[in-house]
Amino acid sequence: MSKREEASSTNGVYGPTELRGHIRAGRFTGQTAGQAPGYLQGNLAILPAVDANDFLRFCTRNPKSCPLIGVGEPGDPRLPGLGTDIDIRTDVPRYRVFHSGQPAGTLPDLMELWRDDFVTFVLGCSFSFEEALRRTGIPVRHIDAGLNAPMFTTNIQTSPAGRFGGPLVVSLRCFAPADAIRAIVLTERYPQAHGAPIHIGNPAAIGIADIQKPDFGDAPVMQPGDIPVFWACGVTPQSAIRTARPEIAITHEPGHMLVTDRLAESGVS
Amino acid sequence: MSKREEASSTNGVYGPTELRGHIRAGRFTGQTAGQAPGYLQGNLAILPAVDANDFLRFCTRNPKSCPLIGVGEPGDPRLPGLGTDIDIRTDVPRYRVFHSGQPAGTLPDLMELWRDDFVTFVLGCSFSFEEALRRTGIPVRHIDAGLNAPMFTTNIQTSPAGRFGGPLVVSLRCFAPADAIRAIVLTERYPQAHGAPIHIGNPAAIGIADIQKPDFGDAPVMQPGDIPVFWACGVTPQSAIRTARPEIAITHEPGHMLVTDRLAESGVS
Repeated sequence: MSKREEASSTNGVYGPTELRGHIRAGRFTGQTAGQAPGYLQGNLAILPAVDANDFLRFCTRNPKSCPLIGVGEPGDPRLPGLGTDIDIRTDVPRYRVFHSGQPAGTLPDLMELWRDDFVTFVLGCSFSFEEALRRTGIPVRHIDAGLNAPMFTTNIQTSPAGRFGGPLVVSLRCFAPADAIRAIVLTERYPQAHGAPIHIGNPAAIGIADIQKPDFGDAPVMQPGDIPVFWACGVTPQSAIRTARPEIAITHEPGHMLVTDRLAESGVS
Repeated sequence: MSKREEASSTNGVYGPTELRGHIRAGRFTGQTAGQAPGYLQGNLAILPAVDANDFLRFCTRNPKSCPLIGVGEPGDPRLPGLGTDIDIRTDVPRYRVFHSGQPAGTLPDLMELWRDDFVTFVLGCSFSFEEALRRTGIPVRHIDAGLNAPMFTTNIQTSPAGRFGGPLVVSLRCFAPADAIRAIVLTERYPQAHGAPIHIGNPAAIGIADIQKPDFGDAPVMQPGDIPVFWACGVTPQSAIRTARPEIAITHEPGHMLVTDRLAESGVS
């Protein structure tokens, strides 16, 4: 049973406030895919103030991989623009900690680790556009198979800012060609969820040697005649953190997102 | 020298009213690509009233290949919705005549052929979106090479209406993958100019055996790493006329379009 299935079979489907309540109380610890349908979910990055300005510039320069939907005040765990009761120390199901850019384990909350110089960044994620694709009748094959999207580190470099930089990470979805065209048109309308793809077709052109061996997530689900389509991915900031080697950094555990009170369609262009 | 070059070297670039005046007087006989920049150009089909209703339904059912931008009254050569002074008998540089669906020569005007049961149909063409692509900095390789777009009869069937039906004809443009994505997003906004593409990638999937051997137009201009992108094409109605075999039908000679007074951006969604 995949983590995604586990999450939905051991928990119901909740609205955003209710879900964050369960997460805060330790009753919901799984992935957030499929939860709070219609609400924007976000990737998390928390950095000390000394690194925060560089990271903010990094996001601004790389809006397709790092679409900023919220920034906290230094030391303040609240994000009133994304949900009145959000406490970022407790409202994400699982956190990853990085010391000097290296993974240093996961945590269920940040109550002990929180510092008064921490700045919170929330970045849009692909769940919003995946929901929109499915509503439009375009199959998202990894979701139908109960798997995570395949993700790859590419040979495309992000635009650096301070010490933050490094390669762009992409996610892959495969479609029949006519659906690929519709998916491009549709996702362009979701700039807060990575927008239109950055590549289509030959994986080798962006440095992907073997499409069957993703760097993160599961192997792709393909049908005969499918064309591969690649979107900028919210794992890119984790790659930038590895490059920058800040003293400490915290992200969400992949798939375990911050669920906001903002409607996914609110930022649709 | 290609016909396109010939047209622009022996004539200047005119606005729509001026250009139609030169065409009407027999002073402009070439292709209309590059003429009246910013104005909508159209494919032409003229049919006897007895076939016109079937053809109108055919266009309505196949809006990507046959985007209707104007229909005349039976027997009336004027199209006041597209230009106050248009006389469809004289304002297209060259006409093609079909008897029972078979080509029966070309004519510089329809003054002798016109009948009081003729109905005029004007369908949007790709010139509008090609101009928009170039304004956005996306190279359109066949234009840069002074050639016509390659066109192919596919194995995709149109939705028939009465005797009108037959295969969809597509035009091909090749792009770097990132430009292909931008071209899809941009052309979706031009539903009166065939809209978003209908296929991307493998030509064999839509019945094209050899991309180097188009059924109409010139061989494709490709750069290494390019991906082929296929749009529904305004030659499709000519294919439907061959299928329907109406007693008489008249179209424009490919590339020799009706230039209207309507701004190309006026129908942009």
